[in-house]
Amino acid sequence: MTGLLLVRGARQLLTLRGPAGPRRGAAMRSLGIIENGAMLIQDGLITNVGPASRVEHLGLARRARVVDAAGRIVMPGFVDSHTHLLFGQPRLNDYEQRIEGRSYGEIAAAGGGILSTVRAVRGTTSRRLTAQGQAALRQMARHGTTTVEAKSGYGLDEGSELKMLRILRALDGEPLELTSTFLGAHAVPPEYEGKADNYIYWLAGHLLPLVASKRLARYADVYCDSGAFALHQAQIYLAAARESGLGLRVHASQFANLGAVQLAVGMGAASVDHLEAAGAAEVHALSGAPTIATLLPGSSFHLGLGRYAPARALIDGGAAVALASDYNPGSSPTCSMQMVLSLACAQMKMTPAEAITAATVNGAHALGVQAQVGTLEAGKQADFLLLDASDYREAPYYFGVNHVAATFKRGEMIYRDKDVSLT
Amino acid sequence: MTGLLLVRGARQLLTLRGPAGPRRGAAMRSLGIIENGAMLIQDGLITNVGPASRVEHLGLARRARVVDAAGRIVMPGFVDSHTHLLFGQPRLNDYEQRIEGRSYGEIAAAGGGILSTVRAVRGTTSRRLTAQGQAALRQMARHGTTTVEAKSGYGLDEGSELKMLRILRALDGEPLELTSTFLGAHAVPPEYEGKADNYIYWLAGHLLPLVASKRLARYADVYCDSGAFALHQAQIYLAAARESGLGLRVHASQFANLGAVQLAVGMGAASVDHLEAAGAAEVHALSGAPTIATLLPGSSFHLGLGRYAPARALIDGGAAVALASDYNPGSSPTCSMQMVLSLACAQMKMTPAEAITAATVNGAHALGVQAQVGTLEAGKQADFLLLDASDYREAPYYFGVNHVAATFKRGEMIYRDKDVSLT
Repeated sequence: MTGLLLVRGARQLLTLRGPAGPRRGAAMRSLGIIENGAMLIQDGLITNVGPASRVEHLGLARRARVVDAAGRIVMPGFVDSHTHLLFGQPRLNDYEQRIEGRSYGEIAAAGGGILSTVRAVRGTTSRRLTAQGQAALRQMARHGTTTVEAKSGYGLDEGSELKMLRILRALDGEPLELTSTFLGAHAVPPEYEGKADNYIYWLAGHLLPLVASKRLARYADVYCDSGAFALHQAQIYLAAARESGLGLRVHASQFANLGAVQLAVGMGAASVDHLEAAGAAEVHALSGAPTIATLLPGSSFHLGLGRYAPARALIDGGAAVALASDYNPGSSPTCSMQMVLSLACAQMKMTPAEAITAATVNGAHALGVQAQVGTLEAGKQADFLLLDASDYREAPYYFGVNHVAATFKRGEMIYRDKDVSLT
Repeated sequence: MTGLLLVRGARQLLTLRGPAGPRRGAAMRSLGIIENGAMLIQDGLITNVGPASRVEHLGLARRARVVDAAGRIVMPGFVDSHTHLLFGQPRLNDYEQRIEGRSYGEIAAAGGGILSTVRAVRGTTSRRLTAQGQAALRQMARHGTTTVEAKSGYGLDEGSELKMLRILRALDGEPLELTSTFLGAHAVPPEYEGKADNYIYWLAGHLLPLVASKRLARYADVYCDSGAFALHQAQIYLAAARESGLGLRVHASQFANLGAVQLAVGMGAASVDHLEAAGAAEVHALSGAPTIATLLPGSSFHLGLGRYAPARALIDGGAAVALASDYNPGSSPTCSMQMVLSLACAQMKMTPAEAITAATVNGAHALGVQAQVGTLEAGKQADFLLLDASDYREAPYYFGVNHVAATFKRGEMIYRDKDVSLT
């Protein structure tokens, strides 16, 4: 909380104001830009946004501390709605082996893959995992993320899953807001090898209700794909999650279309994520659906598969598209939502405006936090960025660099580059 | 110049020491790593590199100022051997139009493309172009580049080409070292529309010798490809350049194989750049050749073409491969050589070690500055980086972020993140 704060001197202030609900179609291209905009903030909430000529002359504005945007872009902080924040260690050997042409199966057989991270996380103390998570969150804040979703799923036994979720709960608000997702159904743990059904029954009958009763997660997520869980297993898991009062998320159609997209939409999932392999039936299922289609181009990039989700077909078909980092040690080790914007534009042919909409307001809808964040409008939290750019399109265009000059969470500056002043 | 400087506490010190000449084949995978390494520097030159246990106990080391690498990676600064540093303005409209599916021809017809940058550069004062170049060089230094090549080629008339080359000369040493290349044959200027031969004759007979006589460039470069100059034009231009005493570089096989690679090798060019379309004949021509094969994956990425140069075939075939940013406003607006490493590894299947070799010592060979920079060895300039990483592979792996904690040029710290100390 910062009392009164006036943000002024923004060359372009991207409000992202628009219709209620997630943005679709042409509405994804409208950023609600105010040239020479200003914003007044009280106790961490936005009270006024508009042209500087109006906002700066409000009575309260004269008593406010001032952030001079100095001709920069002001925009909402990124909502990164899909991350595997806690993983302990990078998987550098997997990375090198994949470059050298080894298959996923060969890498797993050599001791790599998801299960190597499971072993690492099980064997890492809460204190060390917390430190790794804090460092990642600091990097995210530095790159403009102000709200983040984070999943368990590298524990896969009761103690380790609860350990992950407790760490995530402790990290919430330090200073990013963090929404926790229980991803017990990420992979079959070694103890249940060859017995995936039994593992799902145990999750559905025991661990899911336990997690829900302890209020350790807001969502449950399942990885339903070839090489992961089957459709009937996802169905059992998601039904139990819904029964327990958890919201639903699904990893689907990364490699194969098993019907998981249709299942997710049918069960009212908040989001269905990945979709690299999605075809016409998946696009049709998501058209106009309240379920958000969350695309994760970082994993397409890092895996070097050359296949990205059909973003144009989804947007043009009326799906509400969000973008997230998929931050994880195996397939997407980037914490930068700006990098995700660059990937979305150059590889998936989303326009810069569509990508920014997907990474802010639609990400907020994917997490159910759209009442608080994702746009810069009166009544919302003052979660915003100053970008070192004179046109918002520079953020994806000049790729591989960090344009964030300062990051604010509820009106507090949580990151700044050397030359941003607050007076 | 900094008198005596001791760099210590490096978890991994990548020396890149190795055989004389550009690195090929298996030699590209050897980074000459010293665990817990230290380096002693006197008056900007490296005098000793080795295990901390030896270097720290040298008599001179005790009187030196100390950079504590604090467990970080120490490596040579990047040599970015292909950039179009000066361009005045980004081409944001081209970017958006390409995303929306317009072709190169349509974008040019709508007033975009290279010639729009030519118009902009012609109409921009030296002072403003200098400021743009300085800002870009600062960003490069911040991302770890310590030596950079920069081309003219957005003037395409006598006054504007000389203006660009004079600015580049003035920027050399401020603080990066800058090698200038005359790229008169970048595109046919409007004044010569439909008369490309005549333009080449004018360059070969007039502007090239003039540039050489004024010592405004070390190299000449020609864009020989479909949609650019033909092979016979490139031949005339390169012959005149050689006659004038300039070294040779060629943009070749980005879109089509016109024989420019073979021409470049045959004429002893220092480097042939792009190669996205290179086939077996081009790989064969470069096998064992002194001409460096410089790959520019940033432009493949940004154009979203999904086609990258055949790095594996080139390396496995015995070409000496370098990596560069191709920093330019149309096809590769990135100044980050770390981003280029990430692209090289994930998209072109170069190992992290090969990519680092290509971006340092082989880049130095591509510019003919290998006696001064590109490795960390006694007698070389102290151009080096501290990376916030505990394994060098993290630099390409965690993509889209800046790992550089500090950049040193000739022993002087020219960039540092907040938490690097020099005592």
